[in-house]
Amino acid sequence: MKRYALGLDFGTESVRALIVDCATGAEASQATVRYPHGVMTSGLPGSRKPLPPDFALQHPQDYLDAATKALAEAVKGVPADRIIGIGVDFTACTMLPVLKDGTPLMKLDKFAGNPHAWVKLWKHHAAQPEADRINEAARARGERFLKYYSGIISSEWMLPKCWETFSKAPEVYAAADLFVEAGDWFVQQMTGAFCRNSCAAGYKGLWNAELGFPSAEFLKALDPALAALPDKWLRNIVPPGRKAGAVTRAFAARTGLKEGTPVSAATIDAHSGVAGMGVSKEGPMSVIMGTSSCHMSLSRELKLFEGYAGVVKDGILPGYYGYESGQSAVGDIFGWFVKDFLRIEAADPFADISKRAAALEPGAGGVVALDWMNGNRSVLMNANLSGVLLGLTLGTKPEEVYRALVEGTAFGTRTIIDAGRRGGIPADELVVCGGLTKDPMIMQIYADVTGLEVKVSPSNQAVALGAAIFGAAAAGSANGGFDDMSEAIAAMTRPPSRTYRPKKKAKAVYDKLYEVYTRTHDFFGRENVSLMKSLRGISAAAKGE
Amino acid sequence: MKRYALGLDFGTESVRALIVDCATGAEASQATVRYPHGVMTSGLPGSRKPLPPDFALQHPQDYLDAATKALAEAVKGVPADRIIGIGVDFTACTMLPVLKDGTPLMKLDKFAGNPHAWVKLWKHHAAQPEADRINEAARARGERFLKYYSGIISSEWMLPKCWETFSKAPEVYAAADLFVEAGDWFVQQMTGAFCRNSCAAGYKGLWNAELGFPSAEFLKALDPALAALPDKWLRNIVPPGRKAGAVTRAFAARTGLKEGTPVSAATIDAHSGVAGMGVSKEGPMSVIMGTSSCHMSLSRELKLFEGYAGVVKDGILPGYYGYESGQSAVGDIFGWFVKDFLRIEAADPFADISKRAAALEPGAGGVVALDWMNGNRSVLMNANLSGVLLGLTLGTKPEEVYRALVEGTAFGTRTIIDAGRRGGIPADELVVCGGLTKDPMIMQIYADVTGLEVKVSPSNQAVALGAAIFGAAAAGSANGGFDDMSEAIAAMTRPPSRTYRPKKKAKAVYDKLYEVYTRTHDFFGRENVSLMKSLRGISAAAKGE
Repeated sequence: MKRYALGLDFGTESVRALIVDCATGAEASQATVRYPHGVMTSGLPGSRKPLPPDFALQHPQDYLDAATKALAEAVKGVPADRIIGIGVDFTACTMLPVLKDGTPLMKLDKFAGNPHAWVKLWKHHAAQPEADRINEAARARGERFLKYYSGIISSEWMLPKCWETFSKAPEVYAAADLFVEAGDWFVQQMTGAFCRNSCAAGYKGLWNAELGFPSAEFLKALDPALAALPDKWLRNIVPPGRKAGAVTRAFAARTGLKEGTPVSAATIDAHSGVAGMGVSKEGPMSVIMGTSSCHMSLSRELKLFEGYAGVVKDGILPGYYGYESGQSAVGDIFGWFVKDFLRIEAADPFADISKRAAALEPGAGGVVALDWMNGNRSVLMNANLSGVLLGLTLGTKPEEVYRALVEGTAFGTRTIIDAGRRGGIPADELVVCGGLTKDPMIMQIYADVTGLEVKVSPSNQAVALGAAIFGAAAAGSANGGFDDMSEAIAAMTRPPSRTYRPKKKAKAVYDKLYEVYTRTHDFFGRENVSLMKSLRGISAAAKGE
Repeated sequence: MKRYALGLDFGTESVRALIVDCATGAEASQATVRYPHGVMTSGLPGSRKPLPPDFALQHPQDYLDAATKALAEAVKGVPADRIIGIGVDFTACTMLPVLKDGTPLMKLDKFAGNPHAWVKLWKHHAAQPEADRINEAARARGERFLKYYSGIISSEWMLPKCWETFSKAPEVYAAADLFVEAGDWFVQQMTGAFCRNSCAAGYKGLWNAELGFPSAEFLKALDPALAALPDKWLRNIVPPGRKAGAVTRAFAARTGLKEGTPVSAATIDAHSGVAGMGVSKEGPMSVIMGTSSCHMSLSRELKLFEGYAGVVKDGILPGYYGYESGQSAVGDIFGWFVKDFLRIEAADPFADISKRAAALEPGAGGVVALDWMNGNRSVLMNANLSGVLLGLTLGTKPEEVYRALVEGTAFGTRTIIDAGRRGGIPADELVVCGGLTKDPMIMQIYADVTGLEVKVSPSNQAVALGAAIFGAAAAGSANGGFDDMSEAIAAMTRPPSRTYRPKKKAKAVYDKLYEVYTRTHDFFGRENVSLMKSLRGISAAAKGE
């Protein structure tokens, strides 16, 4: 009898339910449903009142409605009693204020019109002032938790978003029993049980295994009333892959799932991809390459060094410290250059320029790009940085710049790898998934620039597959699943579909270009950070912002 | 009775004869004729033998044929006996080996097939190895003449070109009685008299009023046989505006000119533009703005400082030290970006982007460009430098980059102005001519960036007009001309057709952007010159050059 596991993958615009065979990982059934309200940046549904700048909200009922539909559809494909476990991955920090029973505050009539009572999506950036003050205070007090994030807290995270609610909507803050990650909330909606997944708690919630949550003294330094904020946070940490609860009768009735099916603690979507790509050991760096890139490594040891966005025990897989870093734009840079800048109008605007770029010898264009068109996440963590093109001549062609942009993002990845190596976290191969992996030129450039083999994941749904694997692990062997994540990963993933090997000659050229990249990177990114910040300020002032 | 002066303006592709009224400078007649053989870079006429790389030759007979035609045509428009003086401007260093009587060596059967016996055009760049060795030796010996050129001798100049002939074609070198500037040669062809104009002697011939020509000891250090090279150079220096000779009967017969008409010593084309723009005093900086830009200032005093391409007594106008600097690409950068890079195909590819760029507020794009797409002439004198774009984001539009490129060239001009000021040569306004002066956005940006009034010359032919003015001065008042260049200039030029005044608010924004430009300029152009040189080397190697 076949056994199945189900991954529920909540992205920014839609949710996917993927059912796979526990013995092989083969896809048995799937369904994707878009959120009816999508991302709300201009106003709440039915309201003409504009949202403040930098707001990005979602409707919690969307998650329930879309997931119910996707589950009902996917579950049709297999016998429900053969689904032994469910995993949930979610964007993060996507958070909402709820009552003890999980009721979102926006469901209460008095808060229906208050934006702070809704879901703040990961890319809600209105809490930047709070993030700035948190960074300042933490630095001033020498808070040890800062070291887990290379010294910088993002406005996207849980504490700034909570503080923003406290400042801008104290009535919502007061009425909230809990501020929860949407992933943890959804697990509670399925199981009736609230727990906090170690992945989001660590990467977005300022929790770490050694120090716990930020101290009351620190929170007091922000605002005396915030000292009690941790009472509004779930503090029972459960790593993804461990059972958080079981599907309730009510949720089973709505979706066709079987009551009592084990559900894993949630995880963050990108981090779920590591398991989905088949990585369960120290050595490989897992990279999800799309509009932006996310880089993840595993280590048995805790190393605190500059350049990583976050280090979390059990943050990616149980038993490992998970190291995360990222590039804030990758595919977005290529899209901007080809579609918005060159304004190539064609069914496939990339076809011609990509072909010409692929025909160039490495280094022939003589152009080097700093890939900071959307700021720099790792290793500099500076949103004020901006892109640079270097080496332009009267003979420079668009395809040479296009190739330089691809190479620039590869140099960005190499910079992350080098920072990790210096910090004691090796990378001996890249395991990759995501939209960009379909382009052989991009893959070969990454191999040549990093000097590492680049192994492309065979699954187009590595993130959802990862969630399913967490579900199979949460079920445990007693229920036909696995007792260990690495067993589950070994059984449920396949070898890479393609491997790109570095070419010696190209590597030697890129080593030289990387020296130019690095010197320029350090000049603008470390030694003269005021230059690009000044450009941002001048531009904003000129536009009257 | 009206009196006229004639300017003969030898450009790279054609010669123009312009006849103007001596009382007003008003254009009376003109004709332009292209050189039949143009610029020869691939082979000599009638030969299948390819020229070596970086060769750019011309046919001396072209100058005679084209000028004869242009003169005959232009002279028809006015009574020849009313033309009181003739001035000649020429590209430089455009040089040729001749016999004592002026016969070009390529006219001798035995040398007809030897490229070194032809005219080496200013942009013949094959003498770079010789230039490198000259710079090395001059620096090692601490040669004082270096200071007149900010320490760098160009491969385009007389000594490297002569040395190249000595090394590559010793038989031509031995047979040459003289190596002469084509401008001086043409004056000899008109008048029978050889002299060397102080402008080309100074800017291209390593002559200066204080030290004379390079010493025999220095030349010996290059090669013992070169010690006698100055014997092959004209050494009777005559400043432009002073009579070099008078039109011969033979030349008069061919062209319709009157025998005995005074001819001024030649001058370099760009430098002739200063008089043609009406500048005859300290204070204004004259700028010829086209595919590249040339900046010229006058001073009663000799100041030796870093950043100027050349300082020459009587080099521009008699009685003044002439300071020259330049930007190796200006209009060429805009043309590259719009036509080659964006590939805008339209009757006027600039129309739309230029309109959008003009509508932007200064600084709004947040982009800064280093205008080195063809290297940097002043103040860094480094051909290995290349262009930079800084401040790119996912929202950057092509018109923002276009505007940044215009601003970048203006920052380049401001850098030249600042170097002059630090060296004691003030610039209190810009007087401009050339193709770019038709664009009001470009002119206003130059005013706003430099903080100076930008005054546009009313003549479309400022260079040829300057030559005519030198002709009128060479005639002297006794012949109905002028005894003094400033008198001639005052009479024969008109006030600016348009004046652009700096706007305070824009200037303040550009001051800030200029700080970013300067810091980046110094990083790549002074502190880390190896970076861009390395890019050039990597590119050349990848292309198999």
